[in-house]
Amino acid sequence: MKLVRFGEFGAEKPGILDEQGNIRDLSGIIPDISGDVLTDEGLAKLKGLDLNTLPTVVGTPRIGPCVGSIGKFACIGLNYSDHAAEAGQPVPKEPILFMKATSAVCGPNDDVEIPRGSKKTDWEVELAVVIGKRAKYVTEEEALDHVAGYCVANDVSEREFQSERGGQWTKGKSHDTFGPLGPWLVTRDEVPDPQALNLWLDVDGVRRQDGSTATMIFSVAKIISYLSQFMTLNVGDVISTGTPPGVGMGQKPNPIFLKPGQEMKLGVEGLGTQLQKTIQA
Amino acid sequence: MKLVRFGEFGAEKPGILDEQGNIRDLSGIIPDISGDVLTDEGLAKLKGLDLNTLPTVVGTPRIGPCVGSIGKFACIGLNYSDHAAEAGQPVPKEPILFMKATSAVCGPNDDVEIPRGSKKTDWEVELAVVIGKRAKYVTEEEALDHVAGYCVANDVSEREFQSERGGQWTKGKSHDTFGPLGPWLVTRDEVPDPQALNLWLDVDGVRRQDGSTATMIFSVAKIISYLSQFMTLNVGDVISTGTPPGVGMGQKPNPIFLKPGQEMKLGVEGLGTQLQKTIQA
Repeated sequence: MKLVRFGEFGAEKPGILDEQGNIRDLSGIIPDISGDVLTDEGLAKLKGLDLNTLPTVVGTPRIGPCVGSIGKFACIGLNYSDHAAEAGQPVPKEPILFMKATSAVCGPNDDVEIPRGSKKTDWEVELAVVIGKRAKYVTEEEALDHVAGYCVANDVSEREFQSERGGQWTKGKSHDTFGPLGPWLVTRDEVPDPQALNLWLDVDGVRRQDGSTATMIFSVAKIISYLSQFMTLNVGDVISTGTPPGVGMGQKPNPIFLKPGQEMKLGVEGLGTQLQKTIQA
Repeated sequence: MKLVRFGEFGAEKPGILDEQGNIRDLSGIIPDISGDVLTDEGLAKLKGLDLNTLPTVVGTPRIGPCVGSIGKFACIGLNYSDHAAEAGQPVPKEPILFMKATSAVCGPNDDVEIPRGSKKTDWEVELAVVIGKRAKYVTEEEALDHVAGYCVANDVSEREFQSERGGQWTKGKSHDTFGPLGPWLVTRDEVPDPQALNLWLDVDGVRRQDGSTATMIFSVAKIISYLSQFMTLNVGDVISTGTPPGVGMGQKPNPIFLKPGQEMKLGVEGLGTQLQKTIQA
């Protein structure tokens, strides 16, 4: 299933894509794409629906982030060896964890703000995972049973705020609109192997990132198991799993950063695409 | 006002302390101590109540964290110059920001888990601030208008997970029960100067921390203004403002860390006390 949230910011309704790619309105069935809806039981109920009985959403509403009521937004740093190299960092021995403020979450096609005073706003296409079952001290073997589904994320980052303003990356990762999620939450039954997905990102039509989740250092299963040793992952939590090479700070001969008026287009194989314009905060 | 949440974990009801120190049940008036209740308008409504008309809570229910539906739990590191010294770190030039997972939040007297494999679980009494008005790019002068109130926090920390497991402190700050908050949310009208509060922490009856918010490097107003340059602070967000000296890793001649079966008692002047026993996760 491809689950979607549509409507105004903060008042999104739940929907589901039908075979023709139209959004069917789920708001008569469930309150949101969040909480219990994301569990195996919740998803099984949706799978039993006859989509033809649901109202078709007319027009082209705004698409919101594909999950609501996100408890935490955990991110993995330097999880592709070639990206670690371009960032001038050693390949990590253990997953690097940082948090993005949940207030940074936005829809896949919303404008992305360049923070005031920013000189180094950068892009990062990533595979994000949405938790569907509470995970505390789970093994790598059972980890994927805790996944509700997958989506595209852009882990927008301000490199000066991240690394030159007193340590701890979260400072450069948390500006409003720095966390576009979606367009769809693709349930895990439709993603047989999360380690075999191409992902890419264009800025103003120029391909900047082009990679595959096959080259992750730590797999999705490893990441979930690992994080669950340090904190409980709850239903509706989101984990973004790191970015392949080609970010702005890694461009040669000189880094390239975003300015207002630019366009990012990005996608992950089977999970849809995002399109964002940059604006001044 | 002293606002409180009582009852089972995850199903707490809102309450308010009366002049005799009894909890009066607010669940007939408001759904929770969260969201709009924390705004100036929401708090003014509560202030207008005649507490004698509210049911008195009988017995001694569990006290929950004093705020519900916390969006983010931001923390400031090394914000007391003498604590920076004991941690062997330079005094920061800008506030150090890290995030604690909101899943770490618990009640002030709940058991605190020692994570599996932990050798360096540590304590940190702190003054926490609860946001009552959205803050984005606010000045230091207007910052305190964005505060709903204050509470005691124990920023429980696993030092090996924090600093020896691949960078980014959040990994050592986010275990379940690492964020006791409360007992009360004391509204800001009852805290005329947040920079003049004594705070202390005992382990098994031995005074380990004894400080004053007067020696903070960055004031509450500065912290709120500063963070609001990097992310939007929303109603119900919590900021813990750093710890004075005397944490376990700073003990002489050798660091002291927590084991199961110990007791932490801690408080901040005017904001009440917490009492936690440590247990194995």
